[in-house]
Amino acid sequence: MRIALIGVGMIGGSLLAAWRQAGLVTTATGYDIDPRAVAAAVARGLIDRSAASVADAVADAELVLVATPVGAMRQVFAQLAPSLSADALLTDVGSTKSDVLADARAALGAAFPRFVPAHPIAGKELPGVDHADVRLFTGKRVVLTPTADTSVEALARMEGLFARTGARVERMDAADHDRIFAAVSHLPHLLSFALIAAIGSEPGGERKLGYGGAGFRDFTRIAASSPVMWRDICVANRAALGEELRGYRALLDRLQQAVDDGDAATLQQTFELAARLRRQWASPDDGQ
Amino acid sequence: MRIALIGVGMIGGSLLAAWRQAGLVTTATGYDIDPRAVAAAVARGLIDRSAASVADAVADAELVLVATPVGAMRQVFAQLAPSLSADALLTDVGSTKSDVLADARAALGAAFPRFVPAHPIAGKELPGVDHADVRLFTGKRVVLTPTADTSVEALARMEGLFARTGARVERMDAADHDRIFAAVSHLPHLLSFALIAAIGSEPGGERKLGYGGAGFRDFTRIAASSPVMWRDICVANRAALGEELRGYRALLDRLQQAVDDGDAATLQQTFELAARLRRQWASPDDGQ
Repeated sequence: MRIALIGVGMIGGSLLAAWRQAGLVTTATGYDIDPRAVAAAVARGLIDRSAASVADAVADAELVLVATPVGAMRQVFAQLAPSLSADALLTDVGSTKSDVLADARAALGAAFPRFVPAHPIAGKELPGVDHADVRLFTGKRVVLTPTADTSVEALARMEGLFARTGARVERMDAADHDRIFAAVSHLPHLLSFALIAAIGSEPGGERKLGYGGAGFRDFTRIAASSPVMWRDICVANRAALGEELRGYRALLDRLQQAVDDGDAATLQQTFELAARLRRQWASPDDGQ
Repeated sequence: MRIALIGVGMIGGSLLAAWRQAGLVTTATGYDIDPRAVAAAVARGLIDRSAASVADAVADAELVLVATPVGAMRQVFAQLAPSLSADALLTDVGSTKSDVLADARAALGAAFPRFVPAHPIAGKELPGVDHADVRLFTGKRVVLTPTADTSVEALARMEGLFARTGARVERMDAADHDRIFAAVSHLPHLLSFALIAAIGSEPGGERKLGYGGAGFRDFTRIAASSPVMWRDICVANRAALGEELRGYRALLDRLQQAVDDGDAATLQQTFELAARLRRQWASPDDGQ
């Protein structure tokens, strides 16, 4: 299969690596606004040809994988639409789906039914194709969010392709997806970035950071993630994220009161609910 | 050395294990309000004798290690003071130090100079002596917060004893300690508990939790920690924690505005500051 990768980073590189290992790639063409990213992917044997433009990259492709930050996808779809083969499949790996679907619908025209929106629930905080990992998707979920207009055949083919990476593939409504991941992904990223930023902005803050232990390291690992990627996600999913953040802040208001008052009962009640749910949730696959 | 352990849990058990491995323990006596905890430690060979009371445990001890939740320490100090040998050393492993010092000063009388307050910056979210780990302190910091009244000899002896666990031992003012750990330990624990509690309280919240990926798992790992222990820490250090939480909430207020407005610049600026500091901070020893 001839694949075009638009946006050459950790996730796109990992997908190409997994599909290469599955024997699915005949040639891979890559385009990125940073030519060094494409050069690095060529050097690693993930990409065969560096394209001069988005249009150039997709001209001959049977599968187009859009793996840019979600804020760039509107423009990418507009640039690739005129050059797309008549039967090319398209997918993406964006962490938000309603906005990506809206961008795709606006730009792709007749090709829109062949676009199968996807969100692999896999990642790490180290950006760049140098951190691509052929096993990144093994045992992880890939959530597809087709619409009523999505081609049944395109959907089935993309399900098959993602399954070949070792992932468990499921379908979900895009709005449902965006609400869920606002809570369990976008909000924690924002909170983790915010903690480091808050401490780092205090007088003596950098000294404080030096005393962080294992718990702090875990809590803030995601704060090393790509600022541009997460800026785009927070803007793209601002309605659902804003709602989750509002609910979280209301709880923090109550906990501030409890801390100030030394109200042990409220703190214990909140912590016990959390510990019970976290232990339930994590038991099958924690420690990965 | 005859050691008495009051509060038989993960940290106290790990310290005993490390001191046993270093050949420092002749006998260890344990007391816990939960007799099963002591029985488990006896079964693991960490404790030789289960004591009937705090007073019984410390009667013959050369070193008393108080490893209860910090909220219980006032009572423990009061119970052990009358039975203490005239030259026994005392230490604790509490995560807050000003309040523990105040409790010790009030209860210990003439023994107060032989109390060397300690906070090992090592832990894991799995409570209980069954999770004791002889290597828990290797390469980790132990912060001692002596006062002007602390015996120079007692301090030197405790520095030597903690060093034998493989830890790096340092000294710090107790108030300074409490401000630092409010920021890099107590606040992140409260925030992590709060995220799980907030999501878990929403309609459909438990389903949402099921979609958490690796980043969510890291962020919420500390929310599986002991609710009672963290309740006590939050109450004991409420002045410094309340201040840190207030600063954090002020930043979240600004980020809520940025999310609602789709203000990409403010989000990016905050995320970039955080990612830069996190990558700097973490580079020497991340991935542990």
